Amino acid sequence: MTYNDDMEKINSNQNSRVKAWTKLQTKKGRQASQTYLLDGWHLVQEAIHANGKLHALMATEDQFKEHEVDFPQGVPVFVIADDIAKKLSDLVTPQGIFAEVSLPSSYRDPKYIHDGAWLFLDAIQDPGNVGTMVRTADAAGFAGVVFGQGSVDPYTPKAVRAMQGSQFHLELTVGDLHTWIPEFTRNDFTVYGTQLNPEAVDIFQVQPATNFALIMGNEGQGMDPELAKLTSKNLYIPLSGHAESLNVGVAAGIAMYTLKH
Amino acid sequence: MTYNDDMEKINSNQNSRVKAWTKLQTKKGRQASQTYLLDGWHLVQEAIHANGKLHALMATEDQFKEHEVDFPQGVPVFVIADDIAKKLSDLVTPQGIFAEVSLPSSYRDPKYIHDGAWLFLDAIQDPGNVGTMVRTADAAGFAGVVFGQGSVDPYTPKAVRAMQGSQFHLELTVGDLHTWIPEFTRNDFTVYGTQLNPEAVDIFQVQPATNFALIMGNEGQGMDPELAKLTSKNLYIPLSGHAESLNVGVAAGIAMYTLKH
Repeated sequence: MTYNDDMEKINSNQNSRVKAWTKLQTKKGRQASQTYLLDGWHLVQEAIHANGKLHALMATEDQFKEHEVDFPQGVPVFVIADDIAKKLSDLVTPQGIFAEVSLPSSYRDPKYIHDGAWLFLDAIQDPGNVGTMVRTADAAGFAGVVFGQGSVDPYTPKAVRAMQGSQFHLELTVGDLHTWIPEFTRNDFTVYGTQLNPEAVDIFQVQPATNFALIMGNEGQGMDPELAKLTSKNLYIPLSGHAESLNVGVAAGIAMYTLKH
Repeated sequence: MTYNDDMEKINSNQNSRVKAWTKLQTKKGRQASQTYLLDGWHLVQEAIHANGKLHALMATEDQFKEHEVDFPQGVPVFVIADDIAKKLSDLVTPQGIFAEVSLPSSYRDPKYIHDGAWLFLDAIQDPGNVGTMVRTADAAGFAGVVFGQGSVDPYTPKAVRAMQGSQFHLELTVGDLHTWIPEFTRNDFTVYGTQLNPEAVDIFQVQPATNFALIMGNEGQGMDPELAKLTSKNLYIPLSGHAESLNVGVAAGIAMYTLKH
């Protein structure tokens, strides 16, 4: 596809496609269409490389011209006005290129999972934290991330932005950790909880493993005490200074790398 | 001091004190007065516990009543309208309590530093990243953080918020890393650079140490190659997955804890 001036350009906020894309900013809208939006060329490119199902590509005239040689065949492309780009993005100055892609299936039966390192999120609420943790899990070679009850939706725009495309490299799934933890221990995984409690086990005393799950708890409350009873072991990251806690995204990074190395 | 209705309340944005406090949102304003603002009771309390020099306390009526028993003696207290609280804060819904405190001296001669773990920041630009790194350095038991050229000002409101009071627990200083690195190696510190380069040394192969410096590089560009030539060793954090990089705050957390444990 090559840009030409005869192409139809979407200029109006009232355009029905624009209205439909805007709805993807909410979980309800994403559930209804079973799609979500990627914002920016880096993410769109990751989707193309991952052979993700692209339903539509939307680009301002400049972005269209810049990237058209890399557009995949058979995907409808829409030229959008700068104002529409601003409406689709939650950034103040969006790059001006978007893709609508399929939501992957969020259901997975833990019974059939027998290996890999898994990150379990217990009620993590900040989309930026969640996105960073998915990105770090990818870098640390984890197999997947399970979004437990009370966790933010993985496909919230801010979370997707912080993931930087890592959702195409590992599995994201939604699940009740009260079920997942016992299923995992039954399948011979070691399941590690994390606590801000020096009576838990110092994470630096644990031997690296291949098959395990690591639970990170809510930003303010920590991990649900009911979950702590189900784990194989509860770990803490030693705080040597006077800090009261670590940012949960940083703590997850330290814990994931320490348990793998 | 006890709240009473006769107290003078600052209601106007045009009040000269309000104008002076508002200037503390910029580096220039902070340099001129040699003070900065703490936003929220948690930070104000940290300053009180650290015996920091408080120049003024500002609180809405509600916050005044809630915390007055803990106000230190001899510090001028101002009752401010909710609108003034919003003006002083960069949060949408500020808590409504602030303190103006002294900027600590930002100069330190590296010649006279002989021990501890130090974090060197090379042109780190995001205030949230910087604040998180200071908080993690505190938790990991670091002695100080050196803000190299091109790094954001440590007392930017967003950075201060992310530090969560850790600036009272370790030393923050500004310095030219081209000078600091050779001074540190001369004083028998091991100075570790970090690179996104698998030909550098795997950080998990390094023995934990007591006296060292760790350099974290700019979010986009990484560490300045000129600095890499001055270090004792350059390290990388292995990326096992398909992720291209880690968030710099997460990478700093993994590196700091790995080198200490």
